[in-house]
Amino acid sequence: MTRNRKLLLVAVLLLFTAAGVGVGLLLTNIQQRIAEGERLRLAARIVPIGELEVDPAVWGINFPYQYDSWLRTREYGVRTPHGGSEPFDKLEANPFRRMAWAGFPFELEFNEDRGHYFAQTDQRETLRITERIQPGSCLNCHSGEFTLLLSEMSWDELNRTPYNYFRDRLAVRSFGVVCADCHDPNTMELRITRPALENALVQQGIDWRQASRQEMRSLVCAQCHSEYYFLGAGNTLVFPWSRGLGLEAIEEHYDTYGFADFTHTLTQAPMIKVQHPEYELFSTSVHYAAGVACADCHMPFTRVGGVKISDHWTRSPLLNINSSCLTCHAGVSEAEMLRRVVTIQGRTKEMLGVTEGALTDAINAIMSAMEAGVPDAALAEARQLHRASQLRWDFIDAENSKGFHSPQEAVRILGHATDLARQAQLSATLALTAHQTEAARAGE
Amino acid sequence: MTRNRKLLLVAVLLLFTAAGVGVGLLLTNIQQRIAEGERLRLAARIVPIGELEVDPAVWGINFPYQYDSWLRTREYGVRTPHGGSEPFDKLEANPFRRMAWAGFPFELEFNEDRGHYFAQTDQRETLRITERIQPGSCLNCHSGEFTLLLSEMSWDELNRTPYNYFRDRLAVRSFGVVCADCHDPNTMELRITRPALENALVQQGIDWRQASRQEMRSLVCAQCHSEYYFLGAGNTLVFPWSRGLGLEAIEEHYDTYGFADFTHTLTQAPMIKVQHPEYELFSTSVHYAAGVACADCHMPFTRVGGVKISDHWTRSPLLNINSSCLTCHAGVSEAEMLRRVVTIQGRTKEMLGVTEGALTDAINAIMSAMEAGVPDAALAEARQLHRASQLRWDFIDAENSKGFHSPQEAVRILGHATDLARQAQLSATLALTAHQTEAARAGE
Repeated sequence: MTRNRKLLLVAVLLLFTAAGVGVGLLLTNIQQRIAEGERLRLAARIVPIGELEVDPAVWGINFPYQYDSWLRTREYGVRTPHGGSEPFDKLEANPFRRMAWAGFPFELEFNEDRGHYFAQTDQRETLRITERIQPGSCLNCHSGEFTLLLSEMSWDELNRTPYNYFRDRLAVRSFGVVCADCHDPNTMELRITRPALENALVQQGIDWRQASRQEMRSLVCAQCHSEYYFLGAGNTLVFPWSRGLGLEAIEEHYDTYGFADFTHTLTQAPMIKVQHPEYELFSTSVHYAAGVACADCHMPFTRVGGVKISDHWTRSPLLNINSSCLTCHAGVSEAEMLRRVVTIQGRTKEMLGVTEGALTDAINAIMSAMEAGVPDAALAEARQLHRASQLRWDFIDAENSKGFHSPQEAVRILGHATDLARQAQLSATLALTAHQTEAARAGE
Repeated sequence: MTRNRKLLLVAVLLLFTAAGVGVGLLLTNIQQRIAEGERLRLAARIVPIGELEVDPAVWGINFPYQYDSWLRTREYGVRTPHGGSEPFDKLEANPFRRMAWAGFPFELEFNEDRGHYFAQTDQRETLRITERIQPGSCLNCHSGEFTLLLSEMSWDELNRTPYNYFRDRLAVRSFGVVCADCHDPNTMELRITRPALENALVQQGIDWRQASRQEMRSLVCAQCHSEYYFLGAGNTLVFPWSRGLGLEAIEEHYDTYGFADFTHTLTQAPMIKVQHPEYELFSTSVHYAAGVACADCHMPFTRVGGVKISDHWTRSPLLNINSSCLTCHAGVSEAEMLRRVVTIQGRTKEMLGVTEGALTDAINAIMSAMEAGVPDAALAEARQLHRASQLRWDFIDAENSKGFHSPQEAVRILGHATDLARQAQLSATLALTAHQTEAARAGE
């Protein structure tokens, strides 16, 4: 064997040795990861979680990372350009709201929400609850004890029982949005616990048990982040989705049922009060069409040490742009992403303002006509237009994204709202003029 | 040497031989590609292109692939949901347009554009040109001979010379949009040849010669796909960009100069006619913010045999979704992309309709007031509102993307347009009522 051949053999042997070491390390690593996964799987069962367990601290023994992140929803006081977790006075921030809701509890107090942790506490203490008689229906979304309560009484009974019946009990543990609301205690699978959503889905031929995990990552949010109303004497909580989730479909639902949440004390119009239709507006967006779920932006995957979890510190993605937006929109800077969102929200805010100007004029015109003694029959059209316009304005004003969840759709809805408000103004003005002309003729 | 060692050596030798062959093939391939590139580079200089050459066929000798694709702009008759290349009658498609432009040549004839190939021919034959006296200014965008004409006379002279002076000459070669409009004949670099854009950019402190190639891939389009007006007796072509490119900035420009394109024959309001503000609207979009150029979607890179070129068959991306949209939006199907675009355009169309309803009512209200003898002073506000509203409606109606170039911004602008039109209607209605009341009192 020549010297060269010897060298070649040595080189080949070294190469094989290195490859062997590499493969060995890889296999060891895979083994370690399997073991780690198994350990985590077992760790997830440290304590059994009872079917009716609503205390997040108990669930937190098995899921400390998720629990820790959920606890951060206690933190508040941070403002985003149009929202955040500081419980500022939204009536003072925009006095038009008080005019819009004249005759409805929201005219008493309406603050920006704090986090999920406070979902029960904050509602329990609003003037809307303390100064008005409210039904137990409120607890569908404003109590972490809801699933427990449902084991003690029927849903119908819960809805129709006065809120105050539960008041003292709720104060003991003050659970906001809890683990049990969205998770099965045995399998940790996402689940729907709120009958109103389940009923609304069934009405559309949808069985949430057949939904994909990605769909569930939005549907669990839709349990509460949806428009609703209280139907009949039993105050049954209903989602107005019988015709679909779009604004016009919702209006058709209400008009068909001849429903009104309240009578406007200034114009005597039969009004709908819209509440946080986040799921409905989002479902019209490109993000939704692209298969993005609520949780992708509001509960993005995050690393805690070596573990990857869904961040249960649900909050505005604007406070977490890097983890939420930039996971998909790679290559865009945080500053640029913020600028884009703020542009979208700014346009929506601007058009909310345009609608508010038109609605203010409409309400004033109807009031002037009423003061002058214009009969109700002559004001029916103006009142119907007031209702239709304000439904649209409220749909976007109450929606907690300032239009971001579906930018063009939000401004489309506000365009109609403005048009209808101006028509209401015109209708009332013409009714007043006709009345005055008639009065003058009668007085001749 | 054992049999095993021999086998090992043979294997090692075979391996090295195979690797050697691979590297050799690779190097040969690289050499071939360099040679091919050089050949193409030289081929690009087969004929020298004169400084004043405007005939695309001559440029096409050096650039046959680009030329062939440009020639396809001769093809027409394809409809997209809201546009395309079929020269259908846009006045018949939406009769409101005739009412909106009462007193302006566009009320005579307004057809959907065919492709770049026909940019001169089609304009030369509209009733707007044949039935009205138009200035040479039109040739800034509607003649491929423009750069040649500029060598024969000053820009000012060209603008103020009547269109009919050029009429017969233009018929000889009938060049639409040509290579020379956007390319330097020596370097093939993109260039600005239209003084109106250059002037508008200078006014904003921008020197297009410092622009990046990507910026130029939009700026060359902006030479013609922008709003403009004819200033003064010399009919100087001006872009109203002194305050910026947004709708409100453009309105401020016109209002500051007290400019009007025409007096509305039905309402006597001083009107602005907006023309294809594609560049302006696009500049407010997320696509623009993301650095997308006009050419990325309307002239996407395409393979012809082994060569990659910018497709000079400029057309709607909806006819070429795979090459235009899906280059960036990978993973979205053509059908889904079409659905998204059509949703955006549908909302815009809907809101154009809402504005048209309000504008129709406003125009009718002003006409009724005029017929009843309401003095001009009492109608000044309504006319100003008519002007402001229609400027906005026309900005979106004349813009050739049905809102796609900036979906939310388009609907924002239309929201204001509707509000202003309804205010115009109200103002005229109140003026009429006041006039009638006064007349009745005088007659008592």
